[in-house]
Parts: sequence; structure tokens; C-alpha cells
Amino acid sequence: MPNRPVLDFWYELASPYACLSALRIEKLAEEAGVDLRWRPLLLGPIFAAQGWNSSPFVLYPAKGRYMWRDTARRARRQGINFVKPEEFPQNSVTATRLALAGREEGWTPVFSKALFRAQFGEGRNIADEAVLSEALKEAGRDPGATLPLARSEEVRGRLKAETEYAKSLGIFGAPFFITGDGEPFWGDDRLEEALEWATQGC
Amino acid sequence: MPNRPVLDFWYELASPYACLSALRIEKLAEEAGVDLRWRPLLLGPIFAAQGWNSSPFVLYPAKGRYMWRDTARRARRQGINFVKPEEFPQNSVTATRLALAGREEGWTPVFSKALFRAQFGEGRNIADEAVLSEALKEAGRDPGATLPLARSEEVRGRLKAETEYAKSLGIFGAPFFITGDGEPFWGDDRLEEALEWATQGC
Repeated sequence: MPNRPVLDFWYELASPYACLSALRIEKLAEEAGVDLRWRPLLLGPIFAAQGWNSSPFVLYPAKGRYMWRDTARRARRQGINFVKPEEFPQNSVTATRLALAGREEGWTPVFSKALFRAQFGEGRNIADEAVLSEALKEAGRDPGATLPLARSEEVRGRLKAETEYAKSLGIFGAPFFITGDGEPFWGDDRLEEALEWATQGC
Repeated sequence: MPNRPVLDFWYELASPYACLSALRIEKLAEEAGVDLRWRPLLLGPIFAAQGWNSSPFVLYPAKGRYMWRDTARRARRQGINFVKPEEFPQNSVTATRLALAGREEGWTPVFSKALFRAQFGEGRNIADEAVLSEALKEAGRDPGATLPLARSEEVRGRLKAETEYAKSLGIFGAPFFITGDGEPFWGDDRLEEALEWATQGC
């Protein structure tokens, strides 16, 4: 059997556009016959390296106002509920460590989608242990046994390495898609194009 | 006869993504039954107001490298030639003043498209008088009589006012589309959506 094409889906759990992609990517990938690799990363260190101490949507208010309008429009088309959470951007460090910890066992996608829905569907804060616990339960995990993974040296080290690797690939925002042959696509609006490239090439 | 819907097309003559839109917008607007208003502006003062002394594609190299790859892909799909000009971003002040001066007489679109093709199709510099003259000729204008308009106080004042107005509308990049009812769309990838909104609303 020939190998199926692969697409790396790099996402930051505090990113509104990554949320839009996360909630639709599986169906599209399935239809295209593409295997997904969910790769959570932190944009904070990447933004910091280019001199930003917060999200560009906070640093550049006109861009931020436009983004909330644009994401609301896109969510409406997608048929999903979308709100601006009270806190933005949220601290996604613990959430991202847990998402990374789930990759081998395969619960990263369900856990990540639960957090995106809590944050941008209900306006809740993904730094809250209650929100993290509910998402873990939704992913079939025992919160008591799983939450401590976020403090493990191994997981912390892996997240640092993943984020450094992302930087070395030229990733500067999220969502970011990279095909098996290395073609980069940035933004929720490039998802269809990325899947097309993954299956057909240029 | 009912009024046809209108779309304002705000563009910066040094912007690669604005070039992609400029070279395809007329056909799409015609098909949608939408009247276009070509509104040249300068992004320099808008970027400066948010602390940038150049294009974000220069200030943030990873973003810049991605942009040239992304625009090349999009241009290929669009069937047009697209190169990275030796100088980027180019000084578009004179070109933009002239483009603005042509609005009443209606030669702004042809002149602007000629400059976009010279710059991103052939890699030439739109600050060069020879390039400006050729574009004016293509638009049916006499360069000797028209070039001095770029130094007129009236045209300079109008461009300043237009750029301030754009800022007040929340415009922070180009291309930027605004429908008759004020809905904003940023980016070449939002052109189709903007036209759809212009004709049908939300």
C-alpha cells in the first residue's frame, strides 16, 4: 500500500485562527486522504525573538479589531460559535505541554479541540485547572494522573525543542501547515491549498 | 435603475499582494456586477505610526521569505509572471501621487496596473521617471504634462488626506477592501469574500 501524504499542523492553543483550523481540519484531511500530525507549539518565544512581548493583535490594535471581526465572519460560515474571550492572549504554556504529552497516546487532537472550544466558543481560560481537567476528561484521560505531566522536565524540554525546531523551519505565526515535501502554508485561509499541495504537489 | 454595489479597493503601489489583487480584481468585479473605486494610499505613514520604519516583510525576515514564496505560488495559479524586484520595498510616493491625480479622469487603474507589472513582473523600479513615463503613456497620458502633478501642493495634500482617512477607517495593510456598508476585508485572499459581501451582504 502506498504511503498516504502527510501534513504537519502547527498550532498555538491561544490563537483564534488556529482554533478555526483545528475545528475543521480533520474532516478536510480525511476527504483529501491526508494524514495529519498535530504539532502544538508556543508562539510566545517566537514573537519574543522578533521583539514582540505580546500578540500582534494586542500590539497593533487596528489589526486586532479587524481580526475579531474576520474570525467571527469565518466562524459563522463554518457554523461554529465564536466569542472573544475576556483574556487575550491566554497563557497557553501548561495547556501546550499537556497537548504535547498526548502525542504518543494519540489524545492531542481531542484535548486541543476541547480547549479551543472552551476558549473561543465559551470564553473560558485555558490556564484554569478546571478547564484543563475537563478537556483531559473529554480526551479520556484522568486529570489527576495527567496534569502533573505539565511539570515534568521531559515534557518541558520537548516543548522547548519543538518550538526551536518550528523557528528553524521559518514558522512565525499560527496556524502553519507544512507538507511532506516541506512546502509552508501560513494561516487558516491556506488550509485547503496546503491539503491540495500535500496530495498533488505544486 | 438600481444602484450597483460598490467596493473600495485600497492599495499601496509597492505591495506584492496588492499587485496580485490589482491584476485580477476588474474581471471578478465585472462578473459580480460590482463597481470598483481604486484608492491608492501610502502604507509608509501607517506603518510608521505603529513603529515600523520599513515593510514588515523586511523587518521580520521569516515572514518576508514566506511572502515571496506565497506570492509566487499565487501568481502561478493566476497565470502571471512574478519576480522579487531588486529593491523592496520601493519608494512609491511619486507613483501614488500620480495614481491619485488620475482618479477624476479615470486613468488610475491602467496606470497602476502598468506600475505593478513593471515592478513585480519585470523587477523594475517604480520610482524611476522612465518607468513612470511608460506607465503614463500606457494610460494615454502625456508624461511631460502629467509628471509635474506629483509635485503639486494640491495632489500632495490630497494624498496625505486619503492616507489619514484610510487610517481612520482602521486600514493597517494592503490590499484592503471596504464594501458600501463599511465591511472591511484585508488581503488578496479576501477579495472574493469582499465581492460576495458587496453583492449579498453578510
